[in-house]
Amino acid sequence: MAEKTENKKLKKQGGWKKPRASAKKNPPSSNKALQKNMQKKADAPMGAKKPKRNNQKRRSAPKKPKPTVRVFSLGGLNEIGKNITVIECENDIVVVDCGIGFPDDDMLGVDLVIPDFTYLINNVEKIRGVFITHGHEDHIGSLPYFLKLMNVPVFGTKLSLGILENKLLEHKLLQSAKLNTVSAGDTVLAGCFKVEFIRVNHSIADACALAITTPQGVILHTGDFKLDVTPIDGEMMDIVRLGQLGNEGVTMLLCESTNVERPGHTPSERKVGFSLEKILDSYTDKRIIIATFASNVHRVQQIIDASVNHGRRVAVTGRSMINVVNAAVKLGYMNVPDGALIDIDEIKKYPPEKITIVTTGSQGEPMSALYRMAFSDHDKVVLTDKDLVVLSSSAIPGNEPLVGKIVNEMYRRGVNVYHDSSVEVHVSGHACQEELKLMHALTKPKYFMPIHGEYRHLIQHKELAEGMGMSADRIFVSDIGKVIEISDEGAKFNGMVQAGKVLIDGSGIGDVGNIVLRDRKSLAENGLIIAVATISLEEGILMSGPEIISRGFVYVRESEELMSGTKDIATRVLIDALDEGIKEWVELKTLLKNAITKYIFAKTKRKPVILPILLNI
Amino acid sequence: MAEKTENKKLKKQGGWKKPRASAKKNPPSSNKALQKNMQKKADAPMGAKKPKRNNQKRRSAPKKPKPTVRVFSLGGLNEIGKNITVIECENDIVVVDCGIGFPDDDMLGVDLVIPDFTYLINNVEKIRGVFITHGHEDHIGSLPYFLKLMNVPVFGTKLSLGILENKLLEHKLLQSAKLNTVSAGDTVLAGCFKVEFIRVNHSIADACALAITTPQGVILHTGDFKLDVTPIDGEMMDIVRLGQLGNEGVTMLLCESTNVERPGHTPSERKVGFSLEKILDSYTDKRIIIATFASNVHRVQQIIDASVNHGRRVAVTGRSMINVVNAAVKLGYMNVPDGALIDIDEIKKYPPEKITIVTTGSQGEPMSALYRMAFSDHDKVVLTDKDLVVLSSSAIPGNEPLVGKIVNEMYRRGVNVYHDSSVEVHVSGHACQEELKLMHALTKPKYFMPIHGEYRHLIQHKELAEGMGMSADRIFVSDIGKVIEISDEGAKFNGMVQAGKVLIDGSGIGDVGNIVLRDRKSLAENGLIIAVATISLEEGILMSGPEIISRGFVYVRESEELMSGTKDIATRVLIDALDEGIKEWVELKTLLKNAITKYIFAKTKRKPVILPILLNI
Repeated sequence: MAEKTENKKLKKQGGWKKPRASAKKNPPSSNKALQKNMQKKADAPMGAKKPKRNNQKRRSAPKKPKPTVRVFSLGGLNEIGKNITVIECENDIVVVDCGIGFPDDDMLGVDLVIPDFTYLINNVEKIRGVFITHGHEDHIGSLPYFLKLMNVPVFGTKLSLGILENKLLEHKLLQSAKLNTVSAGDTVLAGCFKVEFIRVNHSIADACALAITTPQGVILHTGDFKLDVTPIDGEMMDIVRLGQLGNEGVTMLLCESTNVERPGHTPSERKVGFSLEKILDSYTDKRIIIATFASNVHRVQQIIDASVNHGRRVAVTGRSMINVVNAAVKLGYMNVPDGALIDIDEIKKYPPEKITIVTTGSQGEPMSALYRMAFSDHDKVVLTDKDLVVLSSSAIPGNEPLVGKIVNEMYRRGVNVYHDSSVEVHVSGHACQEELKLMHALTKPKYFMPIHGEYRHLIQHKELAEGMGMSADRIFVSDIGKVIEISDEGAKFNGMVQAGKVLIDGSGIGDVGNIVLRDRKSLAENGLIIAVATISLEEGILMSGPEIISRGFVYVRESEELMSGTKDIATRVLIDALDEGIKEWVELKTLLKNAITKYIFAKTKRKPVILPILLNI
Repeated sequence: MAEKTENKKLKKQGGWKKPRASAKKNPPSSNKALQKNMQKKADAPMGAKKPKRNNQKRRSAPKKPKPTVRVFSLGGLNEIGKNITVIECENDIVVVDCGIGFPDDDMLGVDLVIPDFTYLINNVEKIRGVFITHGHEDHIGSLPYFLKLMNVPVFGTKLSLGILENKLLEHKLLQSAKLNTVSAGDTVLAGCFKVEFIRVNHSIADACALAITTPQGVILHTGDFKLDVTPIDGEMMDIVRLGQLGNEGVTMLLCESTNVERPGHTPSERKVGFSLEKILDSYTDKRIIIATFASNVHRVQQIIDASVNHGRRVAVTGRSMINVVNAAVKLGYMNVPDGALIDIDEIKKYPPEKITIVTTGSQGEPMSALYRMAFSDHDKVVLTDKDLVVLSSSAIPGNEPLVGKIVNEMYRRGVNVYHDSSVEVHVSGHACQEELKLMHALTKPKYFMPIHGEYRHLIQHKELAEGMGMSADRIFVSDIGKVIEISDEGAKFNGMVQAGKVLIDGSGIGDVGNIVLRDRKSLAENGLIIAVATISLEEGILMSGPEIISRGFVYVRESEELMSGTKDIATRVLIDALDEGIKEWVELKTLLKNAITKYIFAKTKRKPVILPILLNI
């Protein structure tokens, strides 16, 4: 594992492979930026000589040291989602992915979490592009926020950009964005870097790993991947190219860690197809509703295929599902026989048992299409005992109660429900242990940084690499903002850049922070009591109030005694204080707050937020 | 399944079995109430004649109809926890269990959920006792609240009552409570009912099913159970007695449904012991910390046994763990060699590799002992890379993020962690499908009500019974408060009693309802803006303010513009309205609220709670 395979400089070999993707999926790009930046690779000669290893140091004339390369992530380490990695060398930066994260339970009211872009904003002139591995939210979702700040070129495969375009349209950025479509096998020049897109399998079509050739050799970023030897679109992960790179020498592997706790291999997506066929064989008398992740184009393709085989029409519902299916069909990622897809409005024209409905909501998301169907809030589909619902997904940890709520409601309506492990209607999109080992074995990296995972995943990925013989000092379990420096002397941690979470609430970006969240938490758990009064400080008398107002504390009509007791306490405190000649605003408020806190706690054992408000007249 | 095995009346057979429990566990009770109520059973004669079936109706003199029996649950149906079932006949009521539930995610700030006891309060003079199947929170946790309202006798096995006593002590109810200790095999007379305790296996010692003989025959309530053929305490579920009851005729089975989605059998608790032995064999150089459910006495016993085998001392930490271990040791449910248990203060006297620590916190509960150990907040134990932590539990669905947080933190500290399925360090306490089928096959009930589960569990349990040949019209998938009436004509749903959730927040019982929760949710998601002003209604002028105060909305120091904009709007609205001669309090407030809502939404796309407060002078 820890072979010394450093590339002293980029070899000017003619050995680039031609892209594998079929011609139909690779129309000549009309994008000028792309034409300028992209280098198509010639066929690799069969049996090409293994590149010379550089581990014998030459004793001749001292060479100029190669520039230092810095690698760090602004997201995706010690957290799930918000994936973004930066590679920097002198005056050039490439950014890999730009995803969103989802709020933790204690981020009350927060819609989304994006990375802190400060470092990139301060170095915007260096950025040569954002390179997208695939079109999932946790890899592209922050791009609208990013591009509003820095309109740099974006490179990605056709489907990734197709999905991104929908988002940019919503943010009114589609016109200005500089999108460059590439295909697996293409290489993009980006300053001193070359970025090669390499096919991988994943739960979305057109996913790639990136081999980034730097002055310090190749840095391989896997993106999210699995190995599917029977993929739906016929494009298996390009293990030949990965192996070639390994033989030529990979300086550093950045490998995803999502499923590192799972032994064995992730099953092929095709397995789901077999299960779907069986289900359709068995339930010829039912309308079938299948909920899955919107972006899983191959899953939807299999649902369509199985439905067509069984003489069913397919209707699609759920905004994100419709967006993705439209993009996939338009871009040729889905193969839909004429007439197979119908509009959701048309389902009434066909017998229910000749209909399959594909929908979002497999995570139990409130207001998703499935949720609305289950709770009779969907204007086109009402679920009954004539329906079979298949949850073609697994609940993301923490989402089980949401999923359970929908499942219970469907059972209550007599709906047949297939969910979780009872039938194999879902497979993961991420590499399990044996696939991760394969990636390490193919790429034989000198250094390794596990990415995309909580701390426990990163550590277990480190242990997996050690188990394959890699020495611990070559493995970098990092954190967001923590910089790995690769120089001729080797790789080491060196310094930090600013990194963190920026919370999105409504249209506000970053204006909700710890203080606001702490207040929301207090308000949520205990509610609020406001004591408000008008005082004439000059005369030292209470002019009106105090009024006691509560929200989220107790049901006031049933707690009149408590409220009037609070009012009495507040009145007494204020009058006493004013009589004593206290005229300090802060002191009066503190006295009022303390007295009410004490009284309420004694009566209820609760600590609501107490907010004293005094007006001077 | 649907054999007609109705018991016309209670047979006065002498065939009661002697309780199986060993003499040591059955000291003569000194409790007078118990002595009065309890009937010890004589030995069953070997090869006793099978009791005559009553399915040949006698044609002689028309018989007086037997009184109607009503069965309903006030909790535990279509929800997890809060288990309580009521059986009523004429002037007698017996209550089975009295548990707590835990708040849903949307019950902000709520500590506990207890059943609505209204029906029982209104019929308190009928209640002959509360019969406890076992000592878990979801079966005994509401008893303190119940007994404060109705001090009726409580019957349970020694360990169940031992755990209950701790709770009653905290609620200052121990002196007044009427606790009656029974043993498996005992029968208690309760009005027209006889309640027989029957040994079952579960994840707590001394668990029982209850066979309640009523004028309409036997109603069998399984409690929570599994079948463990190699139980730790040698007491297997009493399948002989269950089978006898089945042969004699069970009118209705109330059977738990927790694991109905899992095929096969739940493994024996002993399996965990084997895994623990292996772990202790392998980690002879580490201190070992094992987190599990406090009440799993057999698990703790196995941890002690394995530790003693490996020359380790065992320290216990976590309040509930200490309570249960103390009760179990005192009552003889644990067999601890002299010197094996040490105080947590003494661990420093021994080499770390000779120490096992048993702790709470396996669900990641904030402020549990394990949580504090992981986050350096425990005064006796700090976790380091010299420690191995075993989570001898599985995460309750929804708790994964909490558990993940602790696991990540432990990995960060270099702690070795065994969790989830990687090693078999946990088994469930509930019957899987094959055990449920066994229960049905043994008891051959005429009617069946699935209990303890969400709707999907109850339905799948119904399907399981149907799969065994029971006809659908004999199965009652019920809901809380829904009454099943059993008469000579058969069983049917008939009416409702009041049932629901009473929320406990601090010392308040039921004073937090939907309005308060809705307010808390709004406050939590969007925060609050208060606009307060003093007005002289008489003169129609603004005297002071408006002041704008916000909590949980934005960080005010960075949003001065927004706040001052809001103040300007509020001022203008109030002055304009007063100038127009508006003197209606409600109208002024509405104008103020609407103007601020509109302004804030335009600026931020958020909808905080807007609270206008006007004081008159």
